Amino acid sequence: MKLIRFGEPGKEKIGVQLDGKNYDVSAFGGDYNEEFFAESGLARLEEFVKANEGKLIEIPAGTRLGAPFTRPSKIVCIGLNYKDHAAETGAQIPVEPVIFMKASTALVGPNDNVVIPKNSVKTDWEVEFCIVIGKKASYVDEANALDYVAGYVLHNDVSEREFQIERGGTWDKGKGCDTFAPMGPFMATADEIPDVNNVRLWLKVNGETYQDGNTSNLIFNIPFVVSYVSQFMTLLPGDVISTGTPAGVGLGFNPPIYLKPGDVIELGADYLGEQRQEVVAYKPQ
Amino acid sequence: MKLIRFGEPGKEKIGVQLDGKNYDVSAFGGDYNEEFFAESGLARLEEFVKANEGKLIEIPAGTRLGAPFTRPSKIVCIGLNYKDHAAETGAQIPVEPVIFMKASTALVGPNDNVVIPKNSVKTDWEVEFCIVIGKKASYVDEANALDYVAGYVLHNDVSEREFQIERGGTWDKGKGCDTFAPMGPFMATADEIPDVNNVRLWLKVNGETYQDGNTSNLIFNIPFVVSYVSQFMTLLPGDVISTGTPAGVGLGFNPPIYLKPGDVIELGADYLGEQRQEVVAYKPQ
Repeated sequence: MKLIRFGEPGKEKIGVQLDGKNYDVSAFGGDYNEEFFAESGLARLEEFVKANEGKLIEIPAGTRLGAPFTRPSKIVCIGLNYKDHAAETGAQIPVEPVIFMKASTALVGPNDNVVIPKNSVKTDWEVEFCIVIGKKASYVDEANALDYVAGYVLHNDVSEREFQIERGGTWDKGKGCDTFAPMGPFMATADEIPDVNNVRLWLKVNGETYQDGNTSNLIFNIPFVVSYVSQFMTLLPGDVISTGTPAGVGLGFNPPIYLKPGDVIELGADYLGEQRQEVVAYKPQ
Repeated sequence: MKLIRFGEPGKEKIGVQLDGKNYDVSAFGGDYNEEFFAESGLARLEEFVKANEGKLIEIPAGTRLGAPFTRPSKIVCIGLNYKDHAAETGAQIPVEPVIFMKASTALVGPNDNVVIPKNSVKTDWEVEFCIVIGKKASYVDEANALDYVAGYVLHNDVSEREFQIERGGTWDKGKGCDTFAPMGPFMATADEIPDVNNVRLWLKVNGETYQDGNTSNLIFNIPFVVSYVSQFMTLLPGDVISTGTPAGVGLGFNPPIYLKPGDVIELGADYLGEQRQEVVAYKPQ
């Protein structure tokens, strides 16, 4: 099943994507939030969709998509999880996963504008494969880790490199600016991906391919990452773990290439659809 | 005004503290959450309390207190914000604030047990003065920063030093374990503190004083910190900024002193009341 949310920012309704078409399921009630995932929402939604087969209303083409779930309690990110990306940033291969956190206020829809923050000169892209947690996970074994996963989602882990690396403190400073977490277009339920450790993901800027990786090259794979993070904090239903980016970010070039207003970012992953963002300058509201 | 929440974990009701006594205000409706702060909840609650003067029901002594607000969208922490603490950890004085984030799943009541995580040998204490945000704050000027503050709360920023410092990645790994964020006993509204840059805060373990500081010694003071964080992420109503800890943490001793089951932590701050936690070992549930 593919979950979507559509409509104006902050007023999104819930929907599903079936055979490439988007349908309104707001009659199901509620939203795709912690409560939904915790209370067997996926199974109940599947029943609802079956019971309403052929009767669901299609969403008009061009309707904005929001992130496919509400703001999670946390967005945990794994850093330097592809060897080629660690190498391009000049970092060592980590001996255990690097964890940082992204402010959930950064969450936006898959095709919303990416806003270059005030005073930013080093805004960069990162295509990532994300895990969406389905049930409360604390000290989970790697062998059982996938039982705690509701599904997966595509993420552009937009990053301000000066804020992240040169301004003191942790990476969190350059990861949580508004619009820095486009997610979607849909959340694919776990059953939609035959092998999570073999998913191609790619990213283009202005039509040129910069990133083209595969989760088969992850240093720490999907079940390991779920288990690992759950040793340090409790993951709640709806929480997101972003698993890291392959090589090809702007920081890795010499000289580095950073985003500027007018740029267009396109990214995608097998099974998870595609995103397209226009880059714009910050404007006071 | 002093806001409290009381009752069983996850089922807390709202209340207020008046002249040192706790009263039930659940008839006011709702909870102390993002919506409450965003929609003039403080002003409406003040009216409600006035209108019900002498009629509010007192909460029985010994009733458990929860954190005085629901899980915020984020808990942002400032690291190394007292010179004496930076010195004791061997760190340089930061030239601008160090930011890290604490998983909001760590939030507990002021007198709940602190659980030493599985595989932890370096669990430590940190008394902190926290800001609670009252309205959406993005790119706020220092001069106006206090207009965005709803109030203040006491926090024990419990920290696992091995997870934080020795396990790769950012400090977030050692800051967000369950029970690592006791907050309360109450949130004091901003008007309760005559000068936020002159608040004494202290912490004892097993009756011995380890920390005794004052926000007058903050490297980056309260309005500056609100303004600064808002340059990197949007703060939502109910979000918490923990402003850093003064000298006297366990890590700073030679050899370091870490928490063990059976220890009792007591901490307090002018205007913000006191907390008392027993330290217990992790037990699988």
